Amino acid sequence: MKRENLTMLADFYEITMANGFLEHGMGEKTAVFDMFFRKVPDDGGFAIMAGVAQLVDYLKNLKFTDEDIEYLREKNLFSEKFLDYLKNFKFSCDVWAIDEGTPIFPGEPIVTVKGPAIQAQFIETMVLVTINHQSLIATKANRIVRAAKGRVVAEFGSRRAQSYDAAILGARAAYIGGVDGTACTITEQLFGIQTYGTMAHSWVQMFDSEYEAFKSFVETYPDNSILLIDTYNVLKSGVPNAIKVAKEVLEPMGKRLKGVRIDSGDIAYLSKKTRKMLDEAGLTDCKIMASNSLDEYLIRDLMLQDAKIDSFGVGERLITAKSSPVFGGVYKLVAVGDNDANLTPKIKISENVEKVTTPGFKSLYRFYDKDTNKALADLITLHDEKIDESKPYVIFHPLFHWKKTKLENYYVKPLLTQLFKNGECVYEDKSVDEIRSYCAKEVESLWDEVKRFENPHTYYVDLSQDLWDLKIKLLDNFGNNN
Amino acid sequence: MKRENLTMLADFYEITMANGFLEHGMGEKTAVFDMFFRKVPDDGGFAIMAGVAQLVDYLKNLKFTDEDIEYLREKNLFSEKFLDYLKNFKFSCDVWAIDEGTPIFPGEPIVTVKGPAIQAQFIETMVLVTINHQSLIATKANRIVRAAKGRVVAEFGSRRAQSYDAAILGARAAYIGGVDGTACTITEQLFGIQTYGTMAHSWVQMFDSEYEAFKSFVETYPDNSILLIDTYNVLKSGVPNAIKVAKEVLEPMGKRLKGVRIDSGDIAYLSKKTRKMLDEAGLTDCKIMASNSLDEYLIRDLMLQDAKIDSFGVGERLITAKSSPVFGGVYKLVAVGDNDANLTPKIKISENVEKVTTPGFKSLYRFYDKDTNKALADLITLHDEKIDESKPYVIFHPLFHWKKTKLENYYVKPLLTQLFKNGECVYEDKSVDEIRSYCAKEVESLWDEVKRFENPHTYYVDLSQDLWDLKIKLLDNFGNNN
Repeated sequence: MKRENLTMLADFYEITMANGFLEHGMGEKTAVFDMFFRKVPDDGGFAIMAGVAQLVDYLKNLKFTDEDIEYLREKNLFSEKFLDYLKNFKFSCDVWAIDEGTPIFPGEPIVTVKGPAIQAQFIETMVLVTINHQSLIATKANRIVRAAKGRVVAEFGSRRAQSYDAAILGARAAYIGGVDGTACTITEQLFGIQTYGTMAHSWVQMFDSEYEAFKSFVETYPDNSILLIDTYNVLKSGVPNAIKVAKEVLEPMGKRLKGVRIDSGDIAYLSKKTRKMLDEAGLTDCKIMASNSLDEYLIRDLMLQDAKIDSFGVGERLITAKSSPVFGGVYKLVAVGDNDANLTPKIKISENVEKVTTPGFKSLYRFYDKDTNKALADLITLHDEKIDESKPYVIFHPLFHWKKTKLENYYVKPLLTQLFKNGECVYEDKSVDEIRSYCAKEVESLWDEVKRFENPHTYYVDLSQDLWDLKIKLLDNFGNNN
Repeated sequence: MKRENLTMLADFYEITMANGFLEHGMGEKTAVFDMFFRKVPDDGGFAIMAGVAQLVDYLKNLKFTDEDIEYLREKNLFSEKFLDYLKNFKFSCDVWAIDEGTPIFPGEPIVTVKGPAIQAQFIETMVLVTINHQSLIATKANRIVRAAKGRVVAEFGSRRAQSYDAAILGARAAYIGGVDGTACTITEQLFGIQTYGTMAHSWVQMFDSEYEAFKSFVETYPDNSILLIDTYNVLKSGVPNAIKVAKEVLEPMGKRLKGVRIDSGDIAYLSKKTRKMLDEAGLTDCKIMASNSLDEYLIRDLMLQDAKIDSFGVGERLITAKSSPVFGGVYKLVAVGDNDANLTPKIKISENVEKVTTPGFKSLYRFYDKDTNKALADLITLHDEKIDESKPYVIFHPLFHWKKTKLENYYVKPLLTQLFKNGECVYEDKSVDEIRSYCAKEVESLWDEVKRFENPHTYYVDLSQDLWDLKIKLLDNFGNNN
């Protein structure tokens, strides 16, 4: 995607720190940062990873223009040595991330960056904003799609998105999460995601009557008309006019009316009445679409009421993840060393217990049951630990150590895929359709108890014995020094 | 701002409708659309208009590339005549908008577009997403700034923004709403908005001790150091080390420690203890900054507890407007005609009463008290109505007609400024600093009762007698035909 130079989309402190590292001879030290999150939005049982392709795109093209350097020089804060470094900037980090579409859980590394401190620090904001945003929307979309139980869901929220990228990349993330398409035209143009469109009230108002408006529309789009039937009165005017147009205009052309849309009023009641009227007129194949501030809770409620809805247009509550609009990913230093082979694990203590980090350069594995292919647990390990799948593996609770579970008859998948190797991109492009299918499959691998909306089961994310020992040692060291 | 071509950031139905209008000989009919909103976020008493400069930028540069045309052609839905129209597209609408920084209220037109139906319809999504997003953030920022009662507020939310533009333009909007600066570097580069930056926990962790980390930082930034004191333990380690550095490193250089930042724990308690320790060490001029999921409610609460905080870093709850993350502006057809001089007002009825629109091509005035300069009421009128300031003016409630107020000793200001005249841009660029000052002044003109957070007084937005008569006539007509 061609766009403005986003290099300077960095928190200012990342630049002052990068300059400071260089100043103190630490710029080329190897730093390892993990991105992880602490809480699933909407108190859900899992989130969906998204945004990796855009992160790759950013890192692949990361450079500082003359204007960027000049702007920084004028701040009178940065050494010429640093500005020179930026001028000749060559990204040389290793980067890993969990594949887009994968269910992800609190506390596990979802992105790991290892490389020169000056670089790994600089990219903090772009790593976070990219992954936080798209994971937020993919997660919300997946909830909505699960509530709709196979009915079509279209993303209609561009107008209420938090600016342009939120509309465009939000629609991409929603598609990964499982929606069937979007009203956002540019998202189809950029990513090949199917657009959906009906008509606005303005179309109906532009004509002298609702009937004329419907008639004109189906004349132009005989195969693709979804008529908006609530401009004046759904049951007295909208449905009768839609039926009349189906009979008088479309049938003589050998065409059928594709659908009607209801955007206001009591959708449950109106959809049932509308279905009955359409059926009685022989339009049993005419679909009913509903919109108007829908989300997973309202859709679930409509289905409980047996509303006759074939497809949902979901707007502001999806594109802003309204009920829980922040994905709280953070980016924390976990190890530092003079070179790759010699890394010292680092921990961040905190007055808030849940803000204590898991130290060290790490790997992440998911255990699956061999018979059911259900996901059993995720395990965070030291980077070079291997798991012998031929033996049982005992996992234990990361806070309540005595709570143990022995895993047998399992296989494991490493979850962190390498994106960059010494700054070289090794990421393989995937289509959004591939990612979306993969997401659906991986969500299928979760137990229903993890997927329910109310009080979902907490999926196990445990530490290996070696990693646990390391964390305890660092915490004890800290305790002894205070 | 240079960026990708956003022409196709349109809901797909805007394009099918535009093509349909042309198809039915209505493309060149004059259509008038109003953007308005129905509810102030957070149940506040008013919102702040923002985003006009970006809307102007988009409209000024609106054109269809060959790729856009080719993409549309491949949809097999659009006539060659339409594609030709797009190829030779020349924006020719009149556009008005309320000035950025102005307090705005539900139900009044905040943007009006008048021009060829095909064009006025096409731009719907970009008008809405641009104004909705920035007005949302400016409104939230203004609430937070008012809660902080003159203390410094810095926008720190880029990493949790809903993608890139939300970070960049969100920081712009937050500044208009009154924050003092942002951590978002590119926003300074693009708009000249002051950046703020401190240090991250990673800086502290990179060094062998907190003291060394602080010492190195102040050596590099002797005039600009705000030390993050909660990496290990605020009172036992962070504050003592900060004081030591101030005494041992900065004082010999003739410098003072600028500030410390607390990002976790009980901020009220820690800030009071920290203040005491700093004061006892003679660092009475060292400022205390607080961050960690702040918003207007938490800031108000901290102030009630007499927390010793000089500045607030506000992140995710500002940049996503977390407690109320949707600004629900809509774009509705209000008049249509064969030409400018011959417009027929249009109304949209709805099963939801609050979705009924106010018809006609209109103007908007704000009445101010001559003595106090306080805003008294807004009045929506037919477009060509004039108000004779020498005479009393009786306003009445738009739903409860008998509730009347006679205004005297007032002056009026028209609120809608023309941005485009027959497609020609007549908008005068303003700096964000001008807009921010104007915003502060205009918010000052509101009564405290409108500004309070709980149950604010509903500011009067009334219709002129002529506009009211028109609305009633259209509603009656509709009622008689149903």
